[in-house]
Amino acid sequence: MQAAMLRLLPMTHIADPRAFRLACREGRFALPTHGQAPGCEQANLVILPRDWADEFLRFCVRNPRPCPVLGVTEPGEVTMHGVADGLDLRHDLPRYRIWRDGAMVEEPTSIAHAWRDDLVAFALGCSFGFESALHAAGLTPRHMRTGSNVPMFRTNIACTPAGRFHGPLVVSMRPYTAREAIEAVQITARYPASHGAPVHLGDPSLIGIADVARPDYGDAVPMEPGEMPVFWACGVTPQAAIAAARPPFAITHAPGFMLVTDRRLPG
Amino acid sequence: MQAAMLRLLPMTHIADPRAFRLACREGRFALPTHGQAPGCEQANLVILPRDWADEFLRFCVRNPRPCPVLGVTEPGEVTMHGVADGLDLRHDLPRYRIWRDGAMVEEPTSIAHAWRDDLVAFALGCSFGFESALHAAGLTPRHMRTGSNVPMFRTNIACTPAGRFHGPLVVSMRPYTAREAIEAVQITARYPASHGAPVHLGDPSLIGIADVARPDYGDAVPMEPGEMPVFWACGVTPQAAIAAARPPFAITHAPGFMLVTDRRLPG
Repeated sequence: MQAAMLRLLPMTHIADPRAFRLACREGRFALPTHGQAPGCEQANLVILPRDWADEFLRFCVRNPRPCPVLGVTEPGEVTMHGVADGLDLRHDLPRYRIWRDGAMVEEPTSIAHAWRDDLVAFALGCSFGFESALHAAGLTPRHMRTGSNVPMFRTNIACTPAGRFHGPLVVSMRPYTAREAIEAVQITARYPASHGAPVHLGDPSLIGIADVARPDYGDAVPMEPGEMPVFWACGVTPQAAIAAARPPFAITHAPGFMLVTDRRLPG
Repeated sequence: MQAAMLRLLPMTHIADPRAFRLACREGRFALPTHGQAPGCEQANLVILPRDWADEFLRFCVRNPRPCPVLGVTEPGEVTMHGVADGLDLRHDLPRYRIWRDGAMVEEPTSIAHAWRDDLVAFALGCSFGFESALHAAGLTPRHMRTGSNVPMFRTNIACTPAGRFHGPLVVSMRPYTAREAIEAVQITARYPASHGAPVHLGDPSLIGIADVARPDYGDAVPMEPGEMPVFWACGVTPQAAIAAARPPFAITHAPGFMLVTDRRLPG
């Protein structure tokens, strides 16, 4: 095995978030971030030119459940106060996506070559936080057991628009019994930076979902007798709003390759 | 007593927030809002031209403890989704302040004459919510007992700047015994839209306060033996940042004459 490959072997437990980001920066880590820096929040990254960023921030603030803002930069700034100490946004994620006119044009491990002084970066909460908490409470989400992606659905609930950004609320679904669902509500309510409590449970048609066996994104998961679907606001919501708005330039994390923050999850 | 005066008599319990706002709109209420629509959040109002508003929203998001954003409008919009049903921002507060180049030029009961299509409005959480909860728990803040304004202090903690907005964190102080302080932490932590848990307790010099008997804003309150000062982030923080930035035009609520929202306080 070559040294270059050895350097990219899964290092399943880089405990310290700063050490993890440094490993990304130095090219020593280029894998999905799940399980890294356990106990720290991971975040979706969105980078937009300033004139689009102002409208996008309004969109997030007006739709906090799907778009919890953990941090926002000044135009051109590559650090993010209160989110990640010593962060350099251009290097510290293991993989990015660069978009032009709504199309993905590159999936690089650094965005230094694409950086511009008018770019504003957003860290948005993701579901890793509350999923860890559900797992720790014995309520491991079904898709984690089946090793698939969480099933996600477009709903008939419209986000509050802001400028050029609009679209439906997208939700993720995890099946639970009623007793488990009640516990899951209480657990996830403690994670507002990670989408918080569910937005719906029970009859999917009430939020415009025709068939829970046919998700719009991700993979279907089996439902057991006595279980109901429980729906949480999902970070695909802002991604879908950005895709629909088609800004001329944008950068995001690559799916699963998140921004690992210093923020501790609620204990 | 004349009819016009009768119409302005304190109506101490307009229970419904929408009815309360309508009373303001129709000129039937022009007094401070404390005690109105009990159980509903009240909010600070800030209105800025769009080019300043974008930077101010970043300032708020980067400093959520002193500047909890309950709502933000699209430019020119006079309603505020999710905050107050049927709101007309131009009429529905009992009193406003209009600012030009950092100086207060007018204190009207309507801002229809000053409205512009480029104005963006912010509703920011205020301390009424958690003070009601403290009172309900038998921890009535001292200044409410003495009938004075809460004492407020500039700290040596710098807010994270955003664009032209910067300045120190301003805190409010309420004295409690250690046992009461521990309870007050738990109660106010449940009100993140109302500044949340304290930012400091005990030795005031650790956050740059030389003398708790000499507040920078509001009134001093007596401290009893065995009490310590407990400090919460304060809504004067964004006001001070705006005053320092001196935008050419701004509108705010008049002190004590808040935006009464439909949002229910946590029970």
